[in-house]
Amino acid sequence: MRIPNHIGIIPDGNRRWAVNQGLSKKDGYTYGLAPGLEIFKLCQEVGVKELTYYGFTMDNTKRRSEQTQAFTKACIESVKLMTKEDCSLLVLGNTDSNMFPQELLPYTKRINFGKGGMKVNILVNYGWHWDLSGLNEKSIKENSKKGIISSLKSKDISRIDLIIRWGNRRRLSGFLPAQSVYSDFYIVDNYWPDFKAQHFYDALNWYDNQDITLGG
Amino acid sequence: MRIPNHIGIIPDGNRRWAVNQGLSKKDGYTYGLAPGLEIFKLCQEVGVKELTYYGFTMDNTKRRSEQTQAFTKACIESVKLMTKEDCSLLVLGNTDSNMFPQELLPYTKRINFGKGGMKVNILVNYGWHWDLSGLNEKSIKENSKKGIISSLKSKDISRIDLIIRWGNRRRLSGFLPAQSVYSDFYIVDNYWPDFKAQHFYDALNWYDNQDITLGG
Repeated sequence: MRIPNHIGIIPDGNRRWAVNQGLSKKDGYTYGLAPGLEIFKLCQEVGVKELTYYGFTMDNTKRRSEQTQAFTKACIESVKLMTKEDCSLLVLGNTDSNMFPQELLPYTKRINFGKGGMKVNILVNYGWHWDLSGLNEKSIKENSKKGIISSLKSKDISRIDLIIRWGNRRRLSGFLPAQSVYSDFYIVDNYWPDFKAQHFYDALNWYDNQDITLGG
Repeated sequence: MRIPNHIGIIPDGNRRWAVNQGLSKKDGYTYGLAPGLEIFKLCQEVGVKELTYYGFTMDNTKRRSEQTQAFTKACIESVKLMTKEDCSLLVLGNTDSNMFPQELLPYTKRINFGKGGMKVNILVNYGWHWDLSGLNEKSIKENSKKGIISSLKSKDISRIDLIIRWGNRRRLSGFLPAQSVYSDFYIVDNYWPDFKAQHFYDALNWYDNQDITLGG
């Protein structure tokens, strides 16, 4: 089986899940922590080399403050969970804004935890326009794919092979526009807190049947 | 019914369709002309304001020359078909390369044909990295979504609401990375030459049920 080198995770549907459970919207995020750790372990098992989670975006921070506080807390906790695993961890996002949690500043350069290993990227206060604003005159003049990606704010994140989105929506919502240009895009109807390992295996099986052309 | 302002079309599957018909791969493209015109008319009917076709990309030009010649010819013919309709036409792509057909140079600035009306954009020898190389120091410093899009090579193409891809593949293949960050993405299993109006209506019905958040 052909295993993707790099998987992107869009863990959507926390709020809709919470409302369905009779909870307040803000209470959904904490139920996304266990699935995040579970999928990390599944990726380790099958030999994925890089895993990127869509934490929260600059767009998301326009929501009600009880929600922004709740998803920020969940992101901080998920980073802390990762520091207890074997991985090479990077938190990436716009640190110039006060929506970026100070607790995560120490993780904005890649650090090995445990035995190191799989790269894990968590996007926190990320914005696609912020990311593209990393381009500079030199990279623009050069105008190669590698040159463009290597000067993004997200230059430490490689091209993504497979994006899996939970929660039934079929859109990228600003997720790493340059690294996702050739990504295969798999949608799970279930909300993220209802994550099951089978979703992951279904996505891998589907990916295995795709013809990879990189736009060619 | 909520009609998308701007629809992007990825007309994929011409070669696979040709092979299924017992034809040579290169012979598939010409069967994509009639569907292109048909979807234009359907968009006109329902009041779509802008329609963008993925013609061919800089990536595609690495294919065998009999294929590149065939899809280039099909693009030229489809532009000519559009000049007979009421529309505001733009051909966009990298004109610095000799893969850009000279016949289409006159259309690289937007021109009204007939009574004008719906904007129609046809991407010809387009590359996502080429597009991003339009960014400049000012737009980067400003770092707003509008500022970024307004300095792309594709600045005359607006944000896309709905992307419809034929041919069963679930990827963007480099299609307008900035304008598609929030696009809803609908996949038709059939190959493009097997286009049916019902595919379009199914996509519109599906889009009508999506919750538009623009990343919020």
